[in-house]
Amino acid sequence: MIYFVTSNKHKYEEISKILQHEIEMLHIPYPEIQANSLEEVVEYGINYLKNRINGPFFIEDSGLFIQALKGFPGVFSSYVFKCIGNKGILKLMEGVIDRKAQFMSVIGFYNGGMYLFRGISEGKIAEEERGDRGFGYDPIFIPNGSQKTFGEMEIEEKNKFSHRGKAAIKLKQFLENLL
Amino acid sequence: MIYFVTSNKHKYEEISKILQHEIEMLHIPYPEIQANSLEEVVEYGINYLKNRINGPFFIEDSGLFIQALKGFPGVFSSYVFKCIGNKGILKLMEGVIDRKAQFMSVIGFYNGGMYLFRGISEGKIAEEERGDRGFGYDPIFIPNGSQKTFGEMEIEEKNKFSHRGKAAIKLKQFLENLL
Repeated sequence: MIYFVTSNKHKYEEISKILQHEIEMLHIPYPEIQANSLEEVVEYGINYLKNRINGPFFIEDSGLFIQALKGFPGVFSSYVFKCIGNKGILKLMEGVIDRKAQFMSVIGFYNGGMYLFRGISEGKIAEEERGDRGFGYDPIFIPNGSQKTFGEMEIEEKNKFSHRGKAAIKLKQFLENLL
Repeated sequence: MIYFVTSNKHKYEEISKILQHEIEMLHIPYPEIQANSLEEVVEYGINYLKNRINGPFFIEDSGLFIQALKGFPGVFSSYVFKCIGNKGILKLMEGVIDRKAQFMSVIGFYNGGMYLFRGISEGKIAEEERGDRGFGYDPIFIPNGSQKTFGEMEIEEKNKFSHRGKAAIKLKQFLENLL
């Protein structure tokens, strides 16, 4: 059994659809540093948690990096979302032609050693919010290869395109080789 | 002699104009956590630094909290500034009538014990950038009691109104009582 340390049930649902392993959601708050990369945030979190949890566990951090906004909201995506939401992002993107953006997910797994898995979804910022599935910036992100936003996709479809799905598949393959 | 651990020379100049003590700028990077308050960020930083520095030291963290944006950019002010700058903030504030905002500074001093000093400057977000002094959001913040933005003030004048000036005066008074 592996713990997924998170307070976000959407993330738990997405990842549990990919991992065949028995995973359990565990809510333990841990410090998230103001780092320049998700990897640093995850590494710091794991170092904080590793002596507080018995047994293997993983955490996940993700962010939306918009090219025209120099990577904003980036590693602070969830905080920024709480303040200005998708409407704030769309306002910042008004009149912006280059709408390229990247969703990134980093999963950090710990079982005595630490292993990081990164997934990236390339895409663009929609002109308006579409769909009410998923969470956060899902209604304004259109992954390359689709016309839909993540907000318009069921979990299975989102997982095929998404940063988190890609990172989770890497974790899955790692765990299979481990056994 | 007291160390001010910072990499921001503007902050160093502002605070050194208030403190009569001999202070020295010391650049040691320390983790800044994604906390809900500046106090938590400062406390975490001091706990990281306290075994790495010989002698008394202080750090300072500050943020701009805009009421209509639910406190954004808040504790992530410097990161947000690097991405979207004052133009981004002004864009988010387009058409917003309530322009109330608060600049907050927290100084954490350590000499074996930890002491926090908070300064607040109430004011509003200007309609456009004015002035080229100071740094960061100074050109778009007008403190109550003035018509000027911080960007239009010399350091001495800014210190009279500013969050950082108020926190530095509290630290100064504390140090005087200590001696």
